[in-house]
Amino acid sequence: MTEPSRGPFLAVDWGTTNRRVYRVVEGVVEQTERDDRGIVAVGQGGFASDVAAIRTRMGDLPMLCAGMVGSNRGWINVPYAECPADLAALADKVVWVEPGRTAIVPGVALRTAGHADVMRGEEVQLLGAVAVGLVPGDAVLCQPGTHCKWATVTGGAITQFATAMTGELFALLHKHSLLAAQMTDSVEPGPDFLRGVADAADDALLTRLFGVRADFVTGLREDAGAASYVSGLLIGTDVRAQHLGGRDIFLLADPNLGALYAAAIAAAGGRAHMIDSQAAFVGGITSIWNRLP
Amino acid sequence: MTEPSRGPFLAVDWGTTNRRVYRVVEGVVEQTERDDRGIVAVGQGGFASDVAAIRTRMGDLPMLCAGMVGSNRGWINVPYAECPADLAALADKVVWVEPGRTAIVPGVALRTAGHADVMRGEEVQLLGAVAVGLVPGDAVLCQPGTHCKWATVTGGAITQFATAMTGELFALLHKHSLLAAQMTDSVEPGPDFLRGVADAADDALLTRLFGVRADFVTGLREDAGAASYVSGLLIGTDVRAQHLGGRDIFLLADPNLGALYAAAIAAAGGRAHMIDSQAAFVGGITSIWNRLP
Repeated sequence: MTEPSRGPFLAVDWGTTNRRVYRVVEGVVEQTERDDRGIVAVGQGGFASDVAAIRTRMGDLPMLCAGMVGSNRGWINVPYAECPADLAALADKVVWVEPGRTAIVPGVALRTAGHADVMRGEEVQLLGAVAVGLVPGDAVLCQPGTHCKWATVTGGAITQFATAMTGELFALLHKHSLLAAQMTDSVEPGPDFLRGVADAADDALLTRLFGVRADFVTGLREDAGAASYVSGLLIGTDVRAQHLGGRDIFLLADPNLGALYAAAIAAAGGRAHMIDSQAAFVGGITSIWNRLP
Repeated sequence: MTEPSRGPFLAVDWGTTNRRVYRVVEGVVEQTERDDRGIVAVGQGGFASDVAAIRTRMGDLPMLCAGMVGSNRGWINVPYAECPADLAALADKVVWVEPGRTAIVPGVALRTAGHADVMRGEEVQLLGAVAVGLVPGDAVLCQPGTHCKWATVTGGAITQFATAMTGELFALLHKHSLLAAQMTDSVEPGPDFLRGVADAADDALLTRLFGVRADFVTGLREDAGAASYVSGLLIGTDVRAQHLGGRDIFLLADPNLGALYAAAIAAAGGRAHMIDSQAAFVGGITSIWNRLP
């Protein structure tokens, strides 16, 4: 960071189902806590009291939040920054909920040829990873999850991104589909996962999914491995649609999901690099904080 | 039909959620009824009494059933006929549940290069359509539905087929996904559906699905048309994976679903022909009946 420090603050990565709070002093995390008080658990009207409770536990400091807390399902709806967006653009569009006390970072919107895409929270990690030098200023980054983000950063700005419903589709199949009864094992980046990744190559996802049932009914395969195979099919389809070639992909993910994407990226001819997403978030939010007037 | 008639019988198309019974005399349907007494509603142990009730209503005749009634979730598990399968092969593998009184037609299984596929019930319609001259002996047929079947018939035998989870995936998205709240309109083969079919062309299904949410959040589009667009994405993906070229596709479907598939097939350069699936079923099951010893 080259910006002058604006003093200690509380940084909050406030998502749909989880929340992480950091007390940041001179760019260093002095204390952190993680809980399941995402915006769904807090609910409309509950944010001010939750924020007061955080200050009681973590210190009576100004606070900068990012993520779904700034959506129409969160505390207030903060207008998106438009692509291309860098950290300065995000700082420009920060909205103060409690003047001088509590602010929220905007998400980023992309509009191209009749299609839109949006992110809220990921932009801080993506640009933070560049700001702290974990990722080059021109790079392709991937944040797997319920809604997997693929972002192109150019000259330290998000210039392009796409969101894939990969994790949500896996959850729907796992919980509600004909295949649910078969998808009982844990997902591992082993042979079944890689078979799914390979089977994603012929763009016959809808048929391959039914094949899980048919393989079982005909006695070709047991259920062990079904969840890993379906995960491989979906992640393989997701990665393949990005046309990676031999590119370097910087992965912001927990170790389990990161290992799955790394395997699928390698199978598609890319090179995956694991990035510390907490360090990226803290770097990004601190840089935005220090740019505020 | 060239086979000698084996006398009047009751033909039952007995699926997972629906059932249709026909009293067939000399190849002609004299009476028919349809209800929701599929195998899930009947349940293990309930089949004999249901069959007795059918005979009370429709006549005390021998009965030939097809569909999921012959699965491990139905009355008894009837082993599959293997591909290639024609009507004679199905007749050979019919199993009598009540000797001389009640029999069940086998489904068809395909095993190729480490993958399997299965059907139960569709085989009677597919081969029946050929037997009664609605479809040439060499043709590609499509039966849309929860699990859409694409079948190649060669010389009057099913030689190849694939099942796509198209309808089930639509139902999962419609009922349980982030997009459910937006998918409130009815599905029509109009501009939104065709936009979905067109967007299926770049194999970015997982991203296009999230785009439905992003388009709404950014104000690019209203929710009206979201269900049709998602249907177009899925059916477009399904049709595209079949690499139709300029082929003729014979569609066995109800008018609504048939219109959607016909539109997507036309967009992919194929030519769709609607076939009467009830006439196909009656023709197929009568031919099997007349071949029994």
